[in-house]
Amino acid sequence: MANITKKVSWSSRGDEGTPLLNGCEARRESSAGGAVFQIGRLSTVDLEEEMMSDEDSVRGRPKEIPHNEKLLSLKYESLDYDNIENQLFLEEERRMSYMGFRCLEISRWVVCGLIGFLTGLIACFIDIVVEQLAGIKYQVVKENIERFTEVGGLSISLILWAVLNSIIVMAGAIIVAFFEPIAAGSGIPQIKCYLNGVKIPRVVRLKTLVVKVCGVICSVVGGLAVGKEGPMIHSGAVVAAGVSQGRSTSLKRDFKIFEYFRRDTEKRDFVSAGAAAGVSAAFGAPVGGVLFSLEEGASFWNQMLTWRIFFASMISTFTLNFFLSIYHKNPGDLSNPGLINFGRFENDSVAYYLYEIPLFIAMGAIGGLLGALFNVLNYWLTIFRIRYVHRPCLQVMEAMLVAAVTATVSFTMIYFSDDCQPLGPEHTEEYPLQLFCADGEYNSMATAFFNTPERSVRSLFHNQPGSYNPLTLGVFTLTYFFLACWTYGLAVSAGVFIPSLLIGAAWGRLCGILLATISATGSIWADPGKYALIGAAAQLGGIVRMTLSLTVILVEATGNVTYGLPIMLVLMTAKIVGDYFVEGLYDIHIKLQSIPFLHWEAPATSHWLTAREVMSSPVTCLNKVEKVGTIVDTLSNTSTNHNGFPVVVQGAPSEEPAKLCGLILRSQLIVLLKHKVFVELARSRLSQRKLQLKDFRDAYPRFPPIQSIHVSQDERECMMDLSEFMTATPYTVPQDTSLPRVFKLVRALGLRHLVVVDDENRVVGLVTRKDLARYHLGKHGLEELQLAQT
Amino acid sequence: MANITKKVSWSSRGDEGTPLLNGCEARRESSAGGAVFQIGRLSTVDLEEEMMSDEDSVRGRPKEIPHNEKLLSLKYESLDYDNIENQLFLEEERRMSYMGFRCLEISRWVVCGLIGFLTGLIACFIDIVVEQLAGIKYQVVKENIERFTEVGGLSISLILWAVLNSIIVMAGAIIVAFFEPIAAGSGIPQIKCYLNGVKIPRVVRLKTLVVKVCGVICSVVGGLAVGKEGPMIHSGAVVAAGVSQGRSTSLKRDFKIFEYFRRDTEKRDFVSAGAAAGVSAAFGAPVGGVLFSLEEGASFWNQMLTWRIFFASMISTFTLNFFLSIYHKNPGDLSNPGLINFGRFENDSVAYYLYEIPLFIAMGAIGGLLGALFNVLNYWLTIFRIRYVHRPCLQVMEAMLVAAVTATVSFTMIYFSDDCQPLGPEHTEEYPLQLFCADGEYNSMATAFFNTPERSVRSLFHNQPGSYNPLTLGVFTLTYFFLACWTYGLAVSAGVFIPSLLIGAAWGRLCGILLATISATGSIWADPGKYALIGAAAQLGGIVRMTLSLTVILVEATGNVTYGLPIMLVLMTAKIVGDYFVEGLYDIHIKLQSIPFLHWEAPATSHWLTAREVMSSPVTCLNKVEKVGTIVDTLSNTSTNHNGFPVVVQGAPSEEPAKLCGLILRSQLIVLLKHKVFVELARSRLSQRKLQLKDFRDAYPRFPPIQSIHVSQDERECMMDLSEFMTATPYTVPQDTSLPRVFKLVRALGLRHLVVVDDENRVVGLVTRKDLARYHLGKHGLEELQLAQT
Repeated sequence: MANITKKVSWSSRGDEGTPLLNGCEARRESSAGGAVFQIGRLSTVDLEEEMMSDEDSVRGRPKEIPHNEKLLSLKYESLDYDNIENQLFLEEERRMSYMGFRCLEISRWVVCGLIGFLTGLIACFIDIVVEQLAGIKYQVVKENIERFTEVGGLSISLILWAVLNSIIVMAGAIIVAFFEPIAAGSGIPQIKCYLNGVKIPRVVRLKTLVVKVCGVICSVVGGLAVGKEGPMIHSGAVVAAGVSQGRSTSLKRDFKIFEYFRRDTEKRDFVSAGAAAGVSAAFGAPVGGVLFSLEEGASFWNQMLTWRIFFASMISTFTLNFFLSIYHKNPGDLSNPGLINFGRFENDSVAYYLYEIPLFIAMGAIGGLLGALFNVLNYWLTIFRIRYVHRPCLQVMEAMLVAAVTATVSFTMIYFSDDCQPLGPEHTEEYPLQLFCADGEYNSMATAFFNTPERSVRSLFHNQPGSYNPLTLGVFTLTYFFLACWTYGLAVSAGVFIPSLLIGAAWGRLCGILLATISATGSIWADPGKYALIGAAAQLGGIVRMTLSLTVILVEATGNVTYGLPIMLVLMTAKIVGDYFVEGLYDIHIKLQSIPFLHWEAPATSHWLTAREVMSSPVTCLNKVEKVGTIVDTLSNTSTNHNGFPVVVQGAPSEEPAKLCGLILRSQLIVLLKHKVFVELARSRLSQRKLQLKDFRDAYPRFPPIQSIHVSQDERECMMDLSEFMTATPYTVPQDTSLPRVFKLVRALGLRHLVVVDDENRVVGLVTRKDLARYHLGKHGLEELQLAQT
Repeated sequence: MANITKKVSWSSRGDEGTPLLNGCEARRESSAGGAVFQIGRLSTVDLEEEMMSDEDSVRGRPKEIPHNEKLLSLKYESLDYDNIENQLFLEEERRMSYMGFRCLEISRWVVCGLIGFLTGLIACFIDIVVEQLAGIKYQVVKENIERFTEVGGLSISLILWAVLNSIIVMAGAIIVAFFEPIAAGSGIPQIKCYLNGVKIPRVVRLKTLVVKVCGVICSVVGGLAVGKEGPMIHSGAVVAAGVSQGRSTSLKRDFKIFEYFRRDTEKRDFVSAGAAAGVSAAFGAPVGGVLFSLEEGASFWNQMLTWRIFFASMISTFTLNFFLSIYHKNPGDLSNPGLINFGRFENDSVAYYLYEIPLFIAMGAIGGLLGALFNVLNYWLTIFRIRYVHRPCLQVMEAMLVAAVTATVSFTMIYFSDDCQPLGPEHTEEYPLQLFCADGEYNSMATAFFNTPERSVRSLFHNQPGSYNPLTLGVFTLTYFFLACWTYGLAVSAGVFIPSLLIGAAWGRLCGILLATISATGSIWADPGKYALIGAAAQLGGIVRMTLSLTVILVEATGNVTYGLPIMLVLMTAKIVGDYFVEGLYDIHIKLQSIPFLHWEAPATSHWLTAREVMSSPVTCLNKVEKVGTIVDTLSNTSTNHNGFPVVVQGAPSEEPAKLCGLILRSQLIVLLKHKVFVELARSRLSQRKLQLKDFRDAYPRFPPIQSIHVSQDERECMMDLSEFMTATPYTVPQDTSLPRVFKLVRALGLRHLVVVDDENRVVGLVTRKDLARYHLGKHGLEELQLAQT
């Protein structure tokens, strides 16, 4: 009926044989050979069913060097968000009484409380240490500058400042680059992937947490254009993964608690609570934290889970609040939450009128444009870094260079600025630099540069009209934009939230000042702080492209819901405008790492693909009672490296392929082999205890590799009965199921393996994350990414 | 391994044969015969696997009269949230270009914008009409009272007030009781069910909307203890269902737009946007609206959908704001959103300290207790109403009675109150009643009663300390509590949010005053308004048991996030305490209507049940090419009344049951029969146009009954080829799948029919909503509800 004309163009030919997750011999040839298998517009027949002669439009584009983003890495595995429902599991569940489930539920709440508490403590620790160290640093530099302002020779101050910064940043970069590279950046892309169901190696380990915390302290104190908020989200996630398991594999301590939670399903739920607690601590935004977790991670919305996440967030803000109130000598005052505090917007100054809405929308569009520019620049920079700056010592040197340049640029700006402002009696600046200003005045440019970014943002929001002159703000925006862009992606732990807010606040305030200048009445435009807030929202939205959660986070951070509506409008506009040009910053980095990230829905135009086309086949299947030798050989096969194996029963002897009766994972087989659960041995050692779920939980999550398991030649001849350990009722789909339907099933249930069967229930293929993540909408319609072993 | 001892007690025997949705002959006998099939504690073997002698603990409880809540009605059908993926659908999707999908996406946004706009308009209309009419009423009564205060004979004023109220309420009750009973109450339980996937008849029709709007105006103006906020949610949902279809079946107008959205999947998504827009308009809480939709309705969290919902919410608040600002002669001022406005809490007065947290928690517990009491009383009242007050005229009379009693009680309270307060220069009371007070003073009790509830709440939050004396508040709480409890469930359109807030605000303020009295210093407890807010949150939380969304709604309504943390704590506590005694009010009403509501997860102790036990079997299957007579007979069989039919192919002639190859719905078969899509006719009339998706969409959602379709005796011999119209790839599960696993699949994907197959892919059963909703955790473990044709 529909005349579907496939326009296939073959671009570059991959030069590496890329073994698939679950080896599909047939497809490997076409896929690895065919490289970026790009299907032009899938269908050229419009709804009126007119035929077009379209031979001329076949795009035989020239070969190009494959970018990293056109690849999909095979290095990443999925999490098992689907429970392994084997006999052991079902028996345990059936044996458990209602009270048992109640206790489990209560311990989940306890764990969430602990997660919140510890995350809050970490946030508190980071905040206090940063404040103390930065205070010392700025004091030293300030005194030095003041000394040399009179006598001349400010270049010495510059050198002091630059060297101080470089050394501190070097410390931070060294631990990140040499000890735990995964701790670089804000960690938000990694957590986003984890919550999406991708197992990122080492992302939730204790070591990562330690490096992250030390690293972020160094980078903030080192004066880089970074924030300490993003890393809090990662920290919260690590805390969650650690606490919920009741043990630390790194420290080799097992507290023998929470053993029930030692599986991916539960762990991932807790990690989402941890991420929320992190956001909550960073911005004092418990609801925003919950929404962040949901917007970035969740697929299936579960009310009880959401409430637990909410509880963790709440405890986290509460803890941070409480300890910071003690630190600030005002114990018990809990009304000032979060690491970043936008300060209170007074009610009188916050009113806005209908005619301001178009202005806000215009500012949103500017934010979207600037955000897209930021992302594109950072994208090129990241490509450059992947190609040329991949050795740790180079990375450390780059970080030091950035630190020195940041100090130099800041100093130059301050030096050449002649924007002197009177120092009021209740000035908010902590380190007002007089420099060449008259007595009782301070250098306005220095307020923006010579400060932690959090304080600078607050100054821009709240300082009296007239505190900054437009030129200062313009120059500051420009330089900080490029500095922040250069900084993101360095091998240091640091977030992009605060720099984005700062850039936006600067140009937002600039807009406010300009509006006040050009408008005749001037009275209602009088508050540039309002426009600084809108600008900050626009810029941040343009870079990270979150809407709902970001709205709530910003509203909670300002402590006033009046701006809810304008902030929403601005974020929406920024997202729409930005998405027109390029993806959000986090998505860019996820793509550059070739992570098989599953989006919310299958590409719209993918209905013509069916499970038959996307699945991997043939599948390596195991028999219900299988020879140990076969299992060992299958697991040892490095060229395929499968992780899930359909278990089959042979029906009639001639029948091929065999009927599906279960699914078993590599990790389970490893444990079985380790404990030598062989049919023959079971008969001879009847007294031996049966393998229990505990054995699997003890091995989780670091299952030994197959190479470390010794199987003797005699044992190879034994048989293993998998029926008790396999998931007896794996989800299946028929071969003709359309890709969107397969996608929906996998995404909604968080499946790792989906077995494709024919109408006799025989295994014909296996769909995994990579098979689905391969398809995405490119500029020319549906594109297929190449799988690579990178 | 596990020694599962089933403790089965047979309580009352149902006296009606209850045909199942998809007739399971075998089970019907045991189920309908066995009535409440209650399994004591499912397993008595604890984790140490010790055996207990438990014969003595078998609970052979005496027979009891079956309550309505122990039944599950067969009257309700599921929505088809799963797309019907037949050939027609796939062909349409494949034919559509990428631009086509973009246009669809844009029209979804347009629809959401329209939904928000219209919902905002309706809210605006209700608000203005209520304010005008209530103003006239209070003015008349006030003048009358003032006249008679001097000369005596206040009983005439009382009669005037009572009669006025009764007449207005009568009007509201008549349209609800006689024309559209589904418009009674707040509509939140109904919308909750709709979003859960239950098709509630007539719930989203235009007529319902009209009755709802008029009804709520009457009940609020009539002085009942009700709010106009709950019905807004229902109104928003109806607007959404109407707008998204691009036509009105009631008005017989088809605008020929949005035809793509004419199916349950899309409609339900839009309805969730409508509900959010309703909340948003009611409380000025766009984020709260989104969270309400998600918390109460969503299963699968989809980012794009959430953003659209957010957009609708935003537009709705915006529209309401804009028109109200014009109405209030302050055009363009948008910073005062929502139907209910809690007024601004000033920043200085809102600070709270750590030592107040235990107080808040205690208040949360009180709220939970009072909420549970409210719910239990209302539960008994509703049972009474179901049994004795089911005739429309009785319902109208009850409503009038309540209106008269409310007026009388209010009047008595005011009359006997001697709480006179000085009338300040900037008093907020619109109708201050002097009554027996000295000149320049007003009766404080009258402020609470002689006012729309919204204004009373605001007075309790914001009036100066000392505006109310404790006795006034105590008496008011007590009387209003019982009035509100009596009112909820009347045959009038009205919400329970505002009365709950009012009760809570009253006793909360009382707590605040008492605290100020007993504390020596008195300075920090000085603000009773703070405690009024906490009390309001606690009471509302105790009654409706929402947490996340309610927190955000309250925070947005107060316009200040400082109270976020305490409100959360209070709502959590209220929920935990309340849940210990009884369910939330909405859940009680859903249960009393025997609606098959699917909770978030299967009952914890249901792992011992498998698909084999819960499914309906045998299933009525159809062949791929089936005789028209057979189809007509199957559809006409009123004793079974099935709605989905697995389509099978007979393999070997002896093979039984046959292999699954698809699934077709009653509605599809009806359309096929109506258009006489018979194999024989197709051959003879080759020129005739093929049946298209449009034909199905035109018939949606009011498919004609089978009785209205005429099939001649000749045609009965024809054959129908279903292969093009059936969903070729229905989701299936094996027989041994555990109930939680089946539940998860159905819940996450919103399935209506799930086919259970054996390991040869042969149909053995069908799982629908009722099969899953039947099981729930009662006091004595897992219980099975009885299916009934009520």
